[in-house]
Amino acid sequence: MATLPFTKGHGTGNDFVVVADPDGELDLSDAQISALCDRHFGIGADGLLRVVRSRAIDAGADAAASGAEWFMDYRNADGSKAEMCGNGTRVFARYLSDTGLASLDGGLRIGTRAGIKTLTRSDRGYEVDLGEFAIEPGETLVRAKGLPVARPGVGVDVGNPHVVVALSSDAELEGLDLTYQPLLDPSPSHGANVEFVVPADPLVRDGVGAIRLRVFERGVGETLSCGTGVAAAALAVRHWAGSAAPDSWVVDTPGGTLGVRVENGRVLLSGPASLVFTGEVALA
Amino acid sequence: MATLPFTKGHGTGNDFVVVADPDGELDLSDAQISALCDRHFGIGADGLLRVVRSRAIDAGADAAASGAEWFMDYRNADGSKAEMCGNGTRVFARYLSDTGLASLDGGLRIGTRAGIKTLTRSDRGYEVDLGEFAIEPGETLVRAKGLPVARPGVGVDVGNPHVVVALSSDAELEGLDLTYQPLLDPSPSHGANVEFVVPADPLVRDGVGAIRLRVFERGVGETLSCGTGVAAAALAVRHWAGSAAPDSWVVDTPGGTLGVRVENGRVLLSGPASLVFTGEVALA
Repeated sequence: MATLPFTKGHGTGNDFVVVADPDGELDLSDAQISALCDRHFGIGADGLLRVVRSRAIDAGADAAASGAEWFMDYRNADGSKAEMCGNGTRVFARYLSDTGLASLDGGLRIGTRAGIKTLTRSDRGYEVDLGEFAIEPGETLVRAKGLPVARPGVGVDVGNPHVVVALSSDAELEGLDLTYQPLLDPSPSHGANVEFVVPADPLVRDGVGAIRLRVFERGVGETLSCGTGVAAAALAVRHWAGSAAPDSWVVDTPGGTLGVRVENGRVLLSGPASLVFTGEVALA
Repeated sequence: MATLPFTKGHGTGNDFVVVADPDGELDLSDAQISALCDRHFGIGADGLLRVVRSRAIDAGADAAASGAEWFMDYRNADGSKAEMCGNGTRVFARYLSDTGLASLDGGLRIGTRAGIKTLTRSDRGYEVDLGEFAIEPGETLVRAKGLPVARPGVGVDVGNPHVVVALSSDAELEGLDLTYQPLLDPSPSHGANVEFVVPADPLVRDGVGAIRLRVFERGVGETLSCGTGVAAAALAVRHWAGSAAPDSWVVDTPGGTLGVRVENGRVLLSGPASLVFTGEVALA
């Protein structure tokens, strides 16, 4: 039975098993990843980040061609491939930097299934450029346990789909029962993550907007933090606030605080990344 | 910042951080244990097992005097001290055996805050003698979300208090919503774990009784498995079954299968124990 060295890390409580596989020699099955991510029988994590050279993975061909040495092979806890993970990119960058595999100086470009993402250091730890975004036209009605009536939400695309709903108070946010999946009308064909946000009062202070949120991730349930969801929520409130809205936002999640910036039509997410422990696990 | 080596293990999904501290030099605060047991920000576990020589911990004086070399200093995930943990004793014994610190041959006696417990190898992995037990007189009414009416339960004391309720079918068991705490009437002063059991049909096959259960642990919520709860559930069904009831039971939990035996007025619990990975964590 082979032994697999790993590192465990998290960004605002969104946690990952990080596995170094520079030359792409590790072929982890969905079942193996699922076992590793199990919180009682395995290591436990929201997902697994395989650290592989772009030239050593098929999905990394474009990244390799454009000089991005490292590729983030992100896998959900059930082993399925995911395009991107905002919190994961920060943990990935910290791992590369702490282990000396790459430097963040001048910006670190990493390959992902959603294209190349650039990571830099920031006051909050690490910042990732999530790229362009879109506010969807029309509205989506959201029903959730704990809300007496359906509320209108707005669709936001930041590489993956989100529906953002504004609530009126912290009490309303805390009263939500997100052990039940919110219902969307119309229902997006591939589902969407749903963010429930409460704007701060006042919304803007010193040119920075502030919101609180809870998020329900499709196929997962409520999570402590969802990087792209945080970006989507800030973008939705900025959209509602109109032309005078700021480009800088602070977002409180149950797992911690993140920053969102809009610059030249792109959205950037910043926050902490921690490496908690290293270990060796028997690979079944 | 000190680095703490540890091993992670589980028994039927009830999982533990195991820390070797033979000479009692490690003074972990409640806050440190709570951080280590956090499933997103730490290692993640239901509790922590400190492996310490009986003579090196005040609570181990009796154990040391009677020749039990090792003491299981069990701590809940919030850092509080707990008397005993049935699944934990098996993981503790496997750790001592695998690391060569002690041998199970002829029975391994370990100190706990609930007295000395003897561990042996068994067909199911490891067996612990939980000691004497008591079926409480009278009945307790149990209300739970998903049950239309209150059901009578019986109190069972196996070192810690339990209330066991019989359900009529697997469908009824699966329909329970244990995200809500069951209500007990009368309410025990220190609370009780609640086990919901479904007897197999037929109840007894080849002289062995069989039941399925789900458990709600006081102060924790639903868990995959609770060792003393498994013993209590088998004891309650054996009590209901009357004088013809067998002394051997097989209990299916969401985390796996355990065995329960009654012998000379004592109850013994058997099941697997796994060591999943080793690691080093920075101690804050």
